Amino acid sequence: MTSTDTLMTSSARSCLAIVLAAGEGTRMKSGKPKVLHQVANCSMLGHVLATVTAAGATGAAVVIGPERDDVAKETQKSLPHARIFVQQDRLGTAHAVLSAREALEGKPDDVIIAFADTPLVLPETFAKLRAPLAEGAAVVAMGFEAKDPTGYGRLVMAGDQLLAIREHKDATEAERAITLCNGGLMAIRGDVALDLLSRVDNANAKGEYYLTDIVAIARKLGHRTAVAVVPEEEVHGVNDRAQLAAAERMIQERLRQAAMASGVTLVAPETVFFSHDTRLGRDVVVEPHVVFGPGVVVEDGAVIHSFSHLEGTRLSPGAGVGPFARLRPGALIGPKAKVGNFVEIKNTELGAGAKVSHLTYLGDASIGAEVNIGAGTITCNYDGFGKYRTEIGEGAFIGSNSSLVAPITIGKGAFVGSGSVITENIPDDALGLGRGRQTIKEGWATEFRAKAQAAKRK
Amino acid sequence: MTSTDTLMTSSARSCLAIVLAAGEGTRMKSGKPKVLHQVANCSMLGHVLATVTAAGATGAAVVIGPERDDVAKETQKSLPHARIFVQQDRLGTAHAVLSAREALEGKPDDVIIAFADTPLVLPETFAKLRAPLAEGAAVVAMGFEAKDPTGYGRLVMAGDQLLAIREHKDATEAERAITLCNGGLMAIRGDVALDLLSRVDNANAKGEYYLTDIVAIARKLGHRTAVAVVPEEEVHGVNDRAQLAAAERMIQERLRQAAMASGVTLVAPETVFFSHDTRLGRDVVVEPHVVFGPGVVVEDGAVIHSFSHLEGTRLSPGAGVGPFARLRPGALIGPKAKVGNFVEIKNTELGAGAKVSHLTYLGDASIGAEVNIGAGTITCNYDGFGKYRTEIGEGAFIGSNSSLVAPITIGKGAFVGSGSVITENIPDDALGLGRGRQTIKEGWATEFRAKAQAAKRK
Amino acid sequence: MTSTDTLMTSSARSCLAIVLAAGEGTRMKSGKPKVLHQVANCSMLGHVLATVTAAGATGAAVVIGPERDDVAKETQKSLPHARIFVQQDRLGTAHAVLSAREALEGKPDDVIIAFADTPLVLPETFAKLRAPLAEGAAVVAMGFEAKDPTGYGRLVMAGDQLLAIREHKDATEAERAITLCNGGLMAIRGDVALDLLSRVDNANAKGEYYLTDIVAIARKLGHRTAVAVVPEEEVHGVNDRAQLAAAERMIQERLRQAAMASGVTLVAPETVFFSHDTRLGRDVVVEPHVVFGPGVVVEDGAVIHSFSHLEGTRLSPGAGVGPFARLRPGALIGPKAKVGNFVEIKNTELGAGAKVSHLTYLGDASIGAEVNIGAGTITCNYDGFGKYRTEIGEGAFIGSNSSLVAPITIGKGAFVGSGSVITENIPDDALGLGRGRQTIKEGWATEFRAKAQAAKRK
Repeated sequence: MTSTDTLMTSSARSCLAIVLAAGEGTRMKSGKPKVLHQVANCSMLGHVLATVTAAGATGAAVVIGPERDDVAKETQKSLPHARIFVQQDRLGTAHAVLSAREALEGKPDDVIIAFADTPLVLPETFAKLRAPLAEGAAVVAMGFEAKDPTGYGRLVMAGDQLLAIREHKDATEAERAITLCNGGLMAIRGDVALDLLSRVDNANAKGEYYLTDIVAIARKLGHRTAVAVVPEEEVHGVNDRAQLAAAERMIQERLRQAAMASGVTLVAPETVFFSHDTRLGRDVVVEPHVVFGPGVVVEDGAVIHSFSHLEGTRLSPGAGVGPFARLRPGALIGPKAKVGNFVEIKNTELGAGAKVSHLTYLGDASIGAEVNIGAGTITCNYDGFGKYRTEIGEGAFIGSNSSLVAPITIGKGAFVGSGSVITENIPDDALGLGRGRQTIKEGWATEFRAKAQAAKRK
Repeated sequence: MTSTDTLMTSSARSCLAIVLAAGEGTRMKSGKPKVLHQVANCSMLGHVLATVTAAGATGAAVVIGPERDDVAKETQKSLPHARIFVQQDRLGTAHAVLSAREALEGKPDDVIIAFADTPLVLPETFAKLRAPLAEGAAVVAMGFEAKDPTGYGRLVMAGDQLLAIREHKDATEAERAITLCNGGLMAIRGDVALDLLSRVDNANAKGEYYLTDIVAIARKLGHRTAVAVVPEEEVHGVNDRAQLAAAERMIQERLRQAAMASGVTLVAPETVFFSHDTRLGRDVVVEPHVVFGPGVVVEDGAVIHSFSHLEGTRLSPGAGVGPFARLRPGALIGPKAKVGNFVEIKNTELGAGAKVSHLTYLGDASIGAEVNIGAGTITCNYDGFGKYRTEIGEGAFIGSNSSLVAPITIGKGAFVGSGSVITENIPDDALGLGRGRQTIKEGWATEFRAKAQAAKRK
Repeated sequence: MTSTDTLMTSSARSCLAIVLAAGEGTRMKSGKPKVLHQVANCSMLGHVLATVTAAGATGAAVVIGPERDDVAKETQKSLPHARIFVQQDRLGTAHAVLSAREALEGKPDDVIIAFADTPLVLPETFAKLRAPLAEGAAVVAMGFEAKDPTGYGRLVMAGDQLLAIREHKDATEAERAITLCNGGLMAIRGDVALDLLSRVDNANAKGEYYLTDIVAIARKLGHRTAVAVVPEEEVHGVNDRAQLAAAERMIQERLRQAAMASGVTLVAPETVFFSHDTRLGRDVVVEPHVVFGPGVVVEDGAVIHSFSHLEGTRLSPGAGVGPFARLRPGALIGPKAKVGNFVEIKNTELGAGAKVSHLTYLGDASIGAEVNIGAGTITCNYDGFGKYRTEIGEGAFIGSNSSLVAPITIGKGAFVGSGSVITENIPDDALGLGRGRQTIKEGWATEFRAKAQAAKRK
C-alpha cells in the first residue's frame, strides 16, 4: 500500500534497474514461467518492477529467457517504458546482466540489480543500497544475517570493507562460518559497471560468470565496496510453491499491518487476503474470512462482513456488504447502500441508500438511490450474444423473484410485483406485473401422494 | 463461556469496581471511542463490566470522558446499575479514580480498579487481587513477569513486600532491570481508599496524579501492601488496531479451548469465530470457516458445515446447517431440520425434520414439521412499508422457484407447483399453481442466432 | 496422498497388524466412540487401517470394545478382510492384544501393534519398526525423544539395547530423567509373540497386563530387542477434542505440503482443508478458503476460487469453479467449463465449455457442451417422492430465473425464455417460453404509497 509512491531520496541521480527474469523455475513444476506466478494478485515480476520504480529507477531493463513472449508481455503491462533483453544461454548472473549491455552503455549514475523471483524487497531497501554509490563506492552488495547460512554466498569482510562474495560451494571452511550472507541484489556505479562486468571470468567449479565476482574485481582495481544489511525476510527468493506461499504470507502480513496502522479494524487479520493495490479508508471494518481481488477501494466507515469477495469495486462511505457478497469489476456501491447475502453485482452502480439484500444478480445496471431490490431478483442482461443494460429509477421497489429482461427501464418510484418477468419499460410510479394467475386444485395433494406411494410400492 | 457466572469466593465483602473508560485512544485512528471497539462481538467496556460483575463486584462506577454519550449508553446497556462519572480533565489515573469520589464515599469493603481497554482479565484474577484485602492489606497491585519490560511501570519489592510502583520514565537504571511489572489493575481496602487517593500529588515529570503512587503512600502510613501475579496475556491493553486484533485472537483462543473441552469438535479451531455468548452442546461439530454472531445457541449433536454465518439463532438437537447457510436473528431450527447452501433464514421457526436445501430466503415465517422447501423459494415478506408473515403447514411441499407473497398461509400437506407466484392461501392438501402456460416456437433459435450474428458482423 | 500405495520393502514376510480400537475415550465427552472421530474426513480407525495396509500388512485384526457394532462396521468398510475381536474386559494392552489370540496362532512372520487413536504414523515408520525382526530381533519398540517426557513410558537402554519399558507411574527418579519415550507401537516376531504375551502378568500398581512388559520378558529369555526412533509428531495420540484438532492440523499440513510439492499453488495453505483422498493435478490453483470433502479429483490447470466446497467431484483440465461454488457428489465438471457464485451442482455432468455462472441449482442433470445456464436457473428434480432427470443439449441457452421441471429434455441449440417454467420438452433449436404476460398499472405506486403511509400514521 505504500510501495507505489516514489521515494524522494536519491532522486537527483539517474538510475537503471536491471531485473533478472530469465530463470526457468523447474522446481515450481509449472507450465508457467516462475516470475509470472503471483503474490497478492500481482506477478512477482510486476512487484519487482513496481518496487524499483518506487525506489527511483529512471530506466529499467528486464532480462528474460528466449521465447518468453509471456514474460515480455507482463513486462510491458507492468512498466511500459522498460526495455526487454533476451539472455540466449544461461551462463551465470554476470552474463545475464551483460545481456542488457545496451542499457548499461547509457551510463546511468547508478545501476541496481534486482531479481524477479525476490518480490519482498522494499523500495527503501534499494535506496539504502544505492546510497554509498553517491559517496563514491563502486559496488554495494546486499547482506543479511542468515538464520541458517548453508547454501548462501558469504560476504567476506575486513572491518566494514567488503572484500569478496564467496559462493557456498567455493567457500573455505572458515568462510562457511560467516553468517552475513549475500542477498543477491546489488548496486553498481554506472561509470564503472560495464568495465567491472566485462572482467568477470568463469574459472570456477560450475564454469559460470558470477555477478558476485565484481566485488573482488572492484577491490583489485582500487575501488571502494560496501554492504547494506537488510532483514532476511526481504531477500526471500521463490523457487517452489511452498516458497511462493511463504512470500504470499509475508506480503499479506505487511498489507494487514499497514491496514491496521491506518485505522482499519481487521477482526481476524490472518483470514483476510488483500491485493497489492487494495485501498481502505479509516474506520473500515473487515470481518473474518474476506478476500480482495485487484482494484478495490473501500471508503471511510464501510463494513465488509464475513465471506465476502470483492474485485474491481468501490465501496462509498458507510456502505455495508455481506456476509456472502460477491462484488465483481465495475460494482460501485453508493453511500450507505447495503448488499446482503448471496448477492452478485457486476458493472453496476448502486445508488445511495439502495438495498440489495438477498439472492440477487445485478449485471450491467444502474440502480437509483433508495431503491429496494427484493430477494431473488435477476437482471437478465445477456441473450447469448450481447449484453444489455437495466436502469432502475430512484426509490423504485422491485418485488422478490423478479426477472428484469434487459434492455429495460424501470421508472422512479415504480413497483414491480413479486415473481414478475418484466420485458417492457415501466413508467415512473407505475406498477409492473408479469406473472401467471393463481389457481387452486383442492385435494390434489392427497391424490398425488396416494398415487406416488402406490407407485413406490410396486 | 465461563465469565458470566458469578464467582462465589469473597462474596461476603461488598465490592465497588471502578472502571476507567475515559481514554481517548488516538492511536486507534477511529471516530469511535476506544472502549467501544469490540472483541468477540462485545465492546471492551462490556467485557470488563461483565468480568467485574462475575468477580463479585456489588457496585460499579464507570469513569468516562466529557461528552461521551455513546460510552454512557453502552455502560447502561451492559450493566444498568452502574453509576457513571465524567472526568472533565485528564490529569492522571488517580485523578480519574477520584472522579468517582461519590461512589468511594459509600465505603465498600473492597475497591477494585479496572481498565476498560484491558478486556482479557479473568474474574478469578480479580478474586486473587481482592484476597489480600480481607487479610488486612490496604493496597494490592497486579503484577506480571514481562517478556520485555520496556515502557511498563516496575514493581519495586523488598522480599515479598511491594514498596512502590515506578513508572518507566521515572525509574532508575537499577529499577529498569526489574521484570515484574505493573498490570494496572489494583485492589484497595474501601476504608482507606479515599484517604490514600487524596494524598497523591503531581510532582513528577509529566505533572500527573498517578494511581500507582498510593503504594508508596500506603507504605509510608504503615499499611501493608501486596502483589498478585498473573500471566502477561491477561493484562494485554488495547491502544491500536493491531492490539485489538491480538485481543480478539486471545479471546477466540479461550472460547475455542472451552468449546473443545466441553465436547465440541472444531475441525479447524483457528478458522472458527465465536461471540462472547455462544453456547454449544455436546457432540456439536463445527466445520472449518464458521462465524458466530451474538446470541447463538447450538444444542447437542447439531452440525454446522463450513462457510456458515449464524447470529441470534437456536439450532435444536441433531439439526444440520450449511455449507453456506446464513441464519439471522430469530431463526429457530427444529430438531433434525436441515438448512442447506445459499439459504437465508430470519425470524422464522423451522419445524422438526423440515428441509430448506438451497437458494432460499425465509423471512417472518413459520414452517411446519417435515415441510420441504424447494430450491429458489422466496418468502415475499416486505412491500416497502410493512413486513408480513408466511405460515406453512406440516408436511407441505413447496415447489422450486416459488414466490410466496405474504401474508399467506399454505395448508398442511399442500403442494405448490414449481415456479408459482402464490398470492392466495392454499387449503390443506390442495395444490396451488400460479405460473404462465408454456408455449414453444419451433426454429426460433436458429433464426435468432442468424440475426444476432449478422448484427454482430455489421 | 502418499499413504495409499503399498511400500515394497519387507513385502517378502507375512505381517499381521493388530489394531487396538477398544478404548472408551471418555475425555472426548462424546456419544461416539473415540476411534470413529475423523481427521481429514476419515475416521482415525480408517486412517490406521489404511496405513498398516500401505506398510505391507497381509492380515489385520481389530480389537474393539463390547457392543460396538459401529466400530465393527467402520472396520468392515475400511478394510473388508480385517478380522474383528472383542475385548470383553479392559485389563491392559497385553490383554487387548491377546484378544486377537486366534489371529496370532496363524504364526505370521511379523506382528505389528498399532493404536486406532494414533492416526499420524506413516507407513514407512511401520517398515522401520519391522526391519529388525528380519534380522532376528524378537521385539521392537517405537521410541521418540519427548519434549516433555512426563507421563510417558520410558525406554530403558543399555547402549543400543532396549532393556525395558517403564510406565511413568512405576518409574524410579533416575528412569524419569530419560527422555526417550515409548510411542506405543511395537513389532514382535510372529513365532514368539504368543509365548511372550502369555508370560505378561499384572503384578503392578494398576493390576493391568502391560504390553510393554514383553520387552523385559524377551530379554530374560535371551531374545534380542530393538528400538526404532521416530519424530514425536507421528505418535501423537488423540484423547480429547483439542488433540483431535491438533491431529487434524498436522495431517492437513502434510496434505498441503504434498500438494505444493507436486506443483499446486495454494495461495494461503492454512485456509485450505483437504480430505485424505483429495487428488490434485499440476498447475491447479486453490485460492484462500476452500474445503474439500471426500472423493475429489482436480485435473491439471483447474482453478478453484475462494469460498468453494467440493465433495465427490471431478474437475476436468482447465475447469474453473467459484467463488462460492458448492459441488456435491456426482458433479463432473467438463474441460474449461465454468461454475460461478452461489451455484450448487449435484449428480450432474457439465459439458466442455459450459457455463453456470450464478445462483443456480443443477441436480440429476446432463448438460451438453457450451451450454449457457442463466442466473437463477433451478432444475426441479424432486416432487416429494422421486428424483427426475434434466437433459440439456449442446449449445442450448437457458434464460435467467427459469424453472426446469424434470423429467425434461431441452434440445440442442434450444432457447428458454427468462423466467419460464418449463414442463414440456423443447425440440432442438426451438424457443420455450412459459411466463405470464406483463401488464402495467399507471400511477399505482403513488396511490399505494399514499395508502401505506396513511395506514402507518394511524
